[in-house]
Amino acid sequence: MSVTDEFLKNNEIYAQTFQGPLPLPPAKHIAVLACMDARINVYAALGIQEGESHVIRNAGGVVTEDEIRSLAISQRLLGTKEIILIHHTDCGMLTFTDDAFKQSIHEEVGVKPAWAAEAFSDLDADVRQSVARIKNSPFIPHKDSVRGFVFDVATGKLREVATA
Amino acid sequence: MSVTDEFLKNNEIYAQTFQGPLPLPPAKHIAVLACMDARINVYAALGIQEGESHVIRNAGGVVTEDEIRSLAISQRLLGTKEIILIHHTDCGMLTFTDDAFKQSIHEEVGVKPAWAAEAFSDLDADVRQSVARIKNSPFIPHKDSVRGFVFDVATGKLREVATA
Repeated sequence: MSVTDEFLKNNEIYAQTFQGPLPLPPAKHIAVLACMDARINVYAALGIQEGESHVIRNAGGVVTEDEIRSLAISQRLLGTKEIILIHHTDCGMLTFTDDAFKQSIHEEVGVKPAWAAEAFSDLDADVRQSVARIKNSPFIPHKDSVRGFVFDVATGKLREVATA
Repeated sequence: MSVTDEFLKNNEIYAQTFQGPLPLPPAKHIAVLACMDARINVYAALGIQEGESHVIRNAGGVVTEDEIRSLAISQRLLGTKEIILIHHTDCGMLTFTDDAFKQSIHEEVGVKPAWAAEAFSDLDADVRQSVARIKNSPFIPHKDSVRGFVFDVATGKLREVATA
């Protein structure tokens, strides 16, 4: 059985006790942007209940054009006002460089990505960079509460990164 | 108290029973790409345990350049092979058009986004479009198991979208 089929079986059990539908706009007016890392269960780690918060995730938890798109839709159309950014310890993005990653793809498939891979070497500095990209965007209206954290995959704790 | 501070208090409780660290590569070799919608608790809805699956999320669960970036890193550097795509009923992306959304931003802040908002009018067609974008990318090596679903926010059930 594929993992996909295994997850579909799990979903059948989940649906048996599911209570819905909840309203579309996030009840807590907040969006969380976190790394895609398998060890970060965002709902559990922040005690989020279904319906409360948008959750945006990608490799690194970085802010690129697509996260600006998602956050703009979240704030402008669905009423969120706070943003939480989450990077984490032992992140895969710390283990390579954009140049080497893109060169390996170039050599293997003959096409070099036109996008940045967004690898980074300093966790705290990259959290600050993500906050700065949001603060710098004209498309995000609510920037009073944009706070960045590092999730410790050993302890499950969030540590706030000073952005000033 | 802000919602951010409320979630930080929840995290203190979460960390008290947290068991870590788990290995970096996803144990089930799979990546899930889902909409950021607040009502989709991906870990719970698919019965995912911490450490098992990458989780990528954005407005709509669509595939843009940044999702190709995340999936390329997921497969090439961290060993995932299957991909699950999840759109959902009652999605905010069904409620507007790119033109109107970008025009409203243009009028309010004087700058028109250079990116597509990725709104859509047909859920199943957009799931198929997301699958097609992955299948069409030279940067994603494993495409044998790319399956798309619609999550029903009323029932909690996943319905597979035929992609053929």
